[in-house]
Amino acid sequence: MPPIHRQLVDRVAIGRYQDEVAHPSAIKAFVAEFISALIFVFAGQGSGMAFGKLTDGGATTPSGLVSAAIAHGLGLFVAVAVSANISGGHVNPAVTFGAFVGGNITLLRGIFYIIAQLLGSVVACLLLFFSTGGLETTGFSVSAGVSVWNALVFEIVMTFGLVYTVYATAVDPKKGDIGTIAPLAIGLIVGANILAGGAFTGASMNPAVAFGPAVVSLNFGNHWIYWVGPLIGGGVAGAIYELVFISRSYDPL
Amino acid sequence: MPPIHRQLVDRVAIGRYQDEVAHPSAIKAFVAEFISALIFVFAGQGSGMAFGKLTDGGATTPSGLVSAAIAHGLGLFVAVAVSANISGGHVNPAVTFGAFVGGNITLLRGIFYIIAQLLGSVVACLLLFFSTGGLETTGFSVSAGVSVWNALVFEIVMTFGLVYTVYATAVDPKKGDIGTIAPLAIGLIVGANILAGGAFTGASMNPAVAFGPAVVSLNFGNHWIYWVGPLIGGGVAGAIYELVFISRSYDPL
Amino acid sequence: MPPIHRQLVDRVAIGRYQDEVAHPSAIKAFVAEFISALIFVFAGQGSGMAFGKLTDGGATTPSGLVSAAIAHGLGLFVAVAVSANISGGHVNPAVTFGAFVGGNITLLRGIFYIIAQLLGSVVACLLLFFSTGGLETTGFSVSAGVSVWNALVFEIVMTFGLVYTVYATAVDPKKGDIGTIAPLAIGLIVGANILAGGAFTGASMNPAVAFGPAVVSLNFGNHWIYWVGPLIGGGVAGAIYELVFISRSYDPL
Amino acid sequence: MPPIHRQLVDRVAIGRYQDEVAHPSAIKAFVAEFISALIFVFAGQGSGMAFGKLTDGGATTPSGLVSAAIAHGLGLFVAVAVSANISGGHVNPAVTFGAFVGGNITLLRGIFYIIAQLLGSVVACLLLFFSTGGLETTGFSVSAGVSVWNALVFEIVMTFGLVYTVYATAVDPKKGDIGTIAPLAIGLIVGANILAGGAFTGASMNPAVAFGPAVVSLNFGNHWIYWVGPLIGGGVAGAIYELVFISRSYDPL
Repeated sequence: MPPIHRQLVDRVAIGRYQDEVAHPSAIKAFVAEFISALIFVFAGQGSGMAFGKLTDGGATTPSGLVSAAIAHGLGLFVAVAVSANISGGHVNPAVTFGAFVGGNITLLRGIFYIIAQLLGSVVACLLLFFSTGGLETTGFSVSAGVSVWNALVFEIVMTFGLVYTVYATAVDPKKGDIGTIAPLAIGLIVGANILAGGAFTGASMNPAVAFGPAVVSLNFGNHWIYWVGPLIGGGVAGAIYELVFISRSYDPL
Repeated sequence: MPPIHRQLVDRVAIGRYQDEVAHPSAIKAFVAEFISALIFVFAGQGSGMAFGKLTDGGATTPSGLVSAAIAHGLGLFVAVAVSANISGGHVNPAVTFGAFVGGNITLLRGIFYIIAQLLGSVVACLLLFFSTGGLETTGFSVSAGVSVWNALVFEIVMTFGLVYTVYATAVDPKKGDIGTIAPLAIGLIVGANILAGGAFTGASMNPAVAFGPAVVSLNFGNHWIYWVGPLIGGGVAGAIYELVFISRSYDPL
Repeated sequence: MPPIHRQLVDRVAIGRYQDEVAHPSAIKAFVAEFISALIFVFAGQGSGMAFGKLTDGGATTPSGLVSAAIAHGLGLFVAVAVSANISGGHVNPAVTFGAFVGGNITLLRGIFYIIAQLLGSVVACLLLFFSTGGLETTGFSVSAGVSVWNALVFEIVMTFGLVYTVYATAVDPKKGDIGTIAPLAIGLIVGANILAGGAFTGASMNPAVAFGPAVVSLNFGNHWIYWVGPLIGGGVAGAIYELVFISRSYDPL
Repeated sequence: MPPIHRQLVDRVAIGRYQDEVAHPSAIKAFVAEFISALIFVFAGQGSGMAFGKLTDGGATTPSGLVSAAIAHGLGLFVAVAVSANISGGHVNPAVTFGAFVGGNITLLRGIFYIIAQLLGSVVACLLLFFSTGGLETTGFSVSAGVSVWNALVFEIVMTFGLVYTVYATAVDPKKGDIGTIAPLAIGLIVGANILAGGAFTGASMNPAVAFGPAVVSLNFGNHWIYWVGPLIGGGVAGAIYELVFISRSYDPL
């Protein structure tokens, strides 16, 4: 797979490698990723804190999972939609890593994106901490009866589905009309997966989503799972999609 | 940032400044904003009254928040969709103010829009008061454990996300295909935010949404929060989006 | 307002008045309306029967309303989408009546549509009666504390919003890109309104939806409300939209 | 009805009959159907296992049905969207069979698709079995008070609606703009139907969805219903849609 460095959204130009971070387009992309992560984490993490407040910290229930799924699914849909034309709408280090593995973003620009995403998540959690009157940001943890290896595989599979969706609906040059609803597909696969994984691993699929609450609550227990799982899942999705569906499509079918 | 007065939806022509309110297009826009606000508030506020009836005025629960989020999210999606081509689909004084700050609507026309939105909300609440057999319209209030300053910041952040979404998906001339799903993104970010903020501030993000119930129930306690918060959040979003993403895009990238 | 008889979806040709019902296109439209009504009522009414089974006929709860709202909202979205290009996707006598009032369908063809819609609803309820093992189809009724006049106004306002949405997103020649998501807007305003009106009137907004269960359960108590309310609301919406937004748009703006 | 063998998505070329399975395009389609089925079943079946974990295997509730409906509806939307341009986005043997009956896929390619779908479902269930720490995959069963014939009719009607939706929004050459939201309609009719049928038959509408859990839990009780019902419903939908809406459309309307 050659490092073709095709951009996620074609109209977003990338500057030359040596100065791309200082390029105006890169600065805009940084701001866009930062604000999108902030919007997404504010709604998603906030919905968890609302559940905690309404149930006095009670255990997750099916309707609590529905609430989390809708908040994260719709929040990510919007976060991707508002940054799609500026930064490609990653909003997730696992997506950025998957784009890098598939040769669709440079290393330097990818690191820049991830810093913006992490920063956006932390600021969202600080704003939530203040505006809820000091409630704890609830970090991700592994449920009873689930080992760290179980949880790791869960996060890998779910993030594989998410990044595969990003590739099929947004990166693939043959996406056609599907591109119009790409942000919806990307957001809603996260919503669907939360209904499955939320009861077992919290269903992060996104290191930035786990990072903000961990920083603000200073709780990094099992935090590595929420980096290693999504990065593996995203990287594998990027590699498979490029190899099977994009590279071979140069055949004159 | 020059007052370029570019219209939200390009095909909607604006008359000359001195007579724009009497222009047929302005009258249509007024009717469209009025009806959209009526449809939106009827569904949203009505869902809260239904929750009150079904639970005998019980406290909000996670499934109550889900109901409010869906009713407001879907209702706003539709309210924006049906007025998008006529008035630009504001349905919210904070959106109109954000559009004004970014130079996308004139002061006079903006005031005209806001009057239509407030009127639509009041009429929706009067219709609900009658058709529910006289139930009280439930106004917005700040939850226990949340100070007015906490609530103000909550409303600012949530409305920032909403108006930023309006700019990125509907105002930005580079929005492309995302414009097709703009009403969905605008409605559903409100749905997502209600799952977070509903348990703390009621999650209005819209002075008109708070105004109607306050008038019909004659309860204006803390009402200022639901004006000041959304107007600050909307204004900041309009200014930032114009400065960072629109004005600088004149560069020949 | 001249009887211009513009067709809801332009590519659907209407035959000459005297033989339009026998025209192949009219037969296709009849089948399409019949099947769409069947799909919609099967999901919507079926969800009510499922709620009854799971709760042993318990009273409606907030999560019961959410279930009804989602089933009807998504079901109608799909029912409109699958018939949009064949019959214009009415699936509702109130929509057909609103289209007639606005001069967008002939009387004969409209009656033909309504027969198909009623038939589809009855067949859906018979299929549900058999496939649930003989459970009663639950008709619409007015809740305690709500007078028939309250309920009538409720149905009028909600159906006004629905048919106004049909006009703004599907009938209006200036709908533009919004047309792509018209079926979604039409379905989801019904979903949103059910969260408000479901606790008071059942939130039918559609005589066919009320007719099927009434026939199969032989219960026509207050049935007139579910015809008169939606027909008034739909007719007013069609008249207002034509007068304000379509007829005057011939002005060279 | 002539066997015209028009492809579901036109840009997907089909090789000549004798070597189509070895054609690169067929291999890509196989991988796409496999991964789509995996993504869909992982979210859908996983949501059922999460409900079981959160309620200690309690009986289905209305909010449990909502959770299942959202997980399957959104999961299928995404699964169809990501494979639409590669394989036509079947993700369901009943859809493949309906496409075959309507002459839109060859027998050999159809069998190939179904093998990929079944394999994807089994692998999803194995991954869930491991990553949930060994929880049982919950197969489909008929509820008390519902005979196998009731259940069979339920599955036939629901799958008819699903495959009719596939035809009207994706296969029909006159689908127009509706094609853009086809994956959404296809996914969400399943979500709506689950709210009706979930309490009676489990609402599979898809033999692959029933097959994976049955294999992993080695429980094939009444399994035939989930093959015979969907295949009849899908086949009837394909035949009716072709005969009524596609074949006759060659008339110069």
